[in-house]
Amino acid sequence: MSKISDLFLDYYQLTMSQSFWRKHGEKEAIFELSFRRLPKDRGYLVTGGIEHCIQHIKNFSLSSESVGSLRNLKKFDQPFLTYLENIKFTGDVWSVRDGEIIFANEPVLQIKAPIIQCQLVETILINTVNLHTLLATKCTRVLHAAQGKPVIDFGARRAHSKLAAFALAEEAHLVGFTGTATVDAGINYSIPLVGTMAHSYVMSFETELEAFRAYAEEFPHECTFLIDTYDSVEGLKNAVKIGLEMEKKGYRLFGVRLDSGDLQKLSEISRKLLDTSGLNYVQVIASGGLDEYSIADLERNQAPINIYGVGTKVSVSADAPWAETIFKMVEFNEMPVSKTSEHKESAPYQKKVYRIMNDSGKYLQDVITAANSTDTFQGGEELLIHRIRTGNLLEPAMSLMNAQQYYRNVFDRLPTRYKALSSPPLYPVNNLIG
Amino acid sequence: MSKISDLFLDYYQLTMSQSFWRKHGEKEAIFELSFRRLPKDRGYLVTGGIEHCIQHIKNFSLSSESVGSLRNLKKFDQPFLTYLENIKFTGDVWSVRDGEIIFANEPVLQIKAPIIQCQLVETILINTVNLHTLLATKCTRVLHAAQGKPVIDFGARRAHSKLAAFALAEEAHLVGFTGTATVDAGINYSIPLVGTMAHSYVMSFETELEAFRAYAEEFPHECTFLIDTYDSVEGLKNAVKIGLEMEKKGYRLFGVRLDSGDLQKLSEISRKLLDTSGLNYVQVIASGGLDEYSIADLERNQAPINIYGVGTKVSVSADAPWAETIFKMVEFNEMPVSKTSEHKESAPYQKKVYRIMNDSGKYLQDVITAANSTDTFQGGEELLIHRIRTGNLLEPAMSLMNAQQYYRNVFDRLPTRYKALSSPPLYPVNNLIG
Repeated sequence: MSKISDLFLDYYQLTMSQSFWRKHGEKEAIFELSFRRLPKDRGYLVTGGIEHCIQHIKNFSLSSESVGSLRNLKKFDQPFLTYLENIKFTGDVWSVRDGEIIFANEPVLQIKAPIIQCQLVETILINTVNLHTLLATKCTRVLHAAQGKPVIDFGARRAHSKLAAFALAEEAHLVGFTGTATVDAGINYSIPLVGTMAHSYVMSFETELEAFRAYAEEFPHECTFLIDTYDSVEGLKNAVKIGLEMEKKGYRLFGVRLDSGDLQKLSEISRKLLDTSGLNYVQVIASGGLDEYSIADLERNQAPINIYGVGTKVSVSADAPWAETIFKMVEFNEMPVSKTSEHKESAPYQKKVYRIMNDSGKYLQDVITAANSTDTFQGGEELLIHRIRTGNLLEPAMSLMNAQQYYRNVFDRLPTRYKALSSPPLYPVNNLIG
Repeated sequence: MSKISDLFLDYYQLTMSQSFWRKHGEKEAIFELSFRRLPKDRGYLVTGGIEHCIQHIKNFSLSSESVGSLRNLKKFDQPFLTYLENIKFTGDVWSVRDGEIIFANEPVLQIKAPIIQCQLVETILINTVNLHTLLATKCTRVLHAAQGKPVIDFGARRAHSKLAAFALAEEAHLVGFTGTATVDAGINYSIPLVGTMAHSYVMSFETELEAFRAYAEEFPHECTFLIDTYDSVEGLKNAVKIGLEMEKKGYRLFGVRLDSGDLQKLSEISRKLLDTSGLNYVQVIASGGLDEYSIADLERNQAPINIYGVGTKVSVSADAPWAETIFKMVEFNEMPVSKTSEHKESAPYQKKVYRIMNDSGKYLQDVITAANSTDTFQGGEELLIHRIRTGNLLEPAMSLMNAQQYYRNVFDRLPTRYKALSSPPLYPVNNLIG
């Protein structure tokens, strides 16, 4: 069995479904996916993974091999297993767009279908939206902290699996990172591939100077030297030396990369020496455990860094590696339902979300109403779009390129105060239901 | 292109390799994978993912489709691309076992091979060992906090991708979790599948009582009721009622599940009512944001909980979602090498690690020596095993079952003080090199 199977489910979804099948037949439910609370220091979230979910739902089925595996568990009835062998999605789906700005308790995905179909896609939907949204949000924060300077993704090695690294490259690209070091993701999404060199490269030559010279010979058009293998200042001097050699041959050194030590001080030393050596076009690239907080500090102190490379802390959304992403039933058999568990209440009724803007298009507040409400709101735009009707896609998948454009527009409309990296104010969401 | 391709690499590994190919040919390097520091509050790590790495290395190659994608980038020479098309692993590998206890700076995997081969497997090796080790360690901590009570894995939905959920189920099983809710992982690794019901199940019936009765009819032999959909104490009473009905039919209710609110208080109320109702065999299962810290609190207060279900915080190793997992060159062309970057120094020479035990087999300290050293240590066992010689496996992969047994033995030998959940003492590792 391949690890990437269609049985990425929680076991209780199957046991419940056997009972639903006997007791409820094809009775319909409506489920909504949302975030119960925003993680600490997050004033908003940027959605990701929505298009992947639309594809998952549209293509949902269980292979006969998978149903055979379930049969072997000897927990399920034969008629129910036969039903599973033929199951596909026949319902309706509404969703926000990838790259949307959303807040707590706002549905980002809604499914109306026979209850079994809703339950069997639960795990993959929560998993996908949770991860992609955390990463898109983290990358947005980093880019916001960098104040428009280019940021590149070095996060593959410590992301939680290959798929998480792939998701990181995708979401980083969505919000506007300049490049990725992750080869398969870069190729798949047409993201520019970027890279410098590892310490091992420098160490494999007798001297740092030889290493830089060898690399410059190999890639004269895109050459960045990692200068901290032994001593950053000595490394910088060696980089300048080879940079000047390159110039004589008609090439230009692209950058020097700082990867440890005091980045503020080293970037100042680097800029100064590069400029006084006539290499003012050489970029100073900083990396090494960076995230939005450390980048904001460097920017506040006007560190002369041109490009930031971020890895680990961004790849795992280190200060918020999880969110309260939930998938809750809000209607069953045409009746509103809700749970009342302490601190985990859920709100009944399928919902609509209106975003109210001022005359210059800036976001003022959101309003949540029941989907069947006829209220409208001046200056308000509805966030949820009908994506699948009775199992059929209503429009093709939104491309990553379109999501990028959409994101850029909406992020611009979010007032700056909600973008604070720490303790942002609460954006007003007015829930008119109940 | 499939997302799971053999191009899960950092771009610089390819650019460096083209230069290595021209300048160094098949000159050999030795790289070591280790943890530069232990994450906060970790007194030890439990290794995971080692067998996956051995398989990755053994099977390393690039498909002609992948090399075609690289050709399309127009960054690499044709002769180098041809070389990549035929590349396979021809070197040697040493590793510790999965389930080993290790500390900072101890190599867990060593590769000796032409430098290009070492570099091209770097990303996948760091990624795999980092994630699996973080998860194995987190699960060990949880089980230790639960003091031998059964713990089950509910973590799929908020793990960082399907693959991370799969890794969680595997590592949880390695250290002794009782079951998993993740269907494909349970089937793949023969882990018992466990599950109760979701709130949606209860909400799809007119009353909670009807829901419980329907579930008991469907699964009379493995029936656990989630009692917090509306009010946990009312839910408990309904569970007792159906539990007594089941008894009359010759069945036994397995458990009640608390998923919100004050778990200490609710578990006490549950135990008392179940016992006074003659249902003393019914298990109290607790879940809802649990991790090793909250479980330790419940155990300290002797909460009458029989089984713990853990999800989100364990699935992302929430208090330590990353580790300083590194892969560093220690020898090149038969000479020791090292870097001296500030706070990121690397230590030269291929190494051996000896674990010194006292007469009753408890761990006293570790000693690191150069691999070519002839020193031996009384009561010391070598941790690194020769796994691959000139590209060939020296022994078959260790099964997950064997890793479980190995882990149980070594964890028992680690003195209890290093297992403290917060601020454990530093285990002595004596580095005799340099």
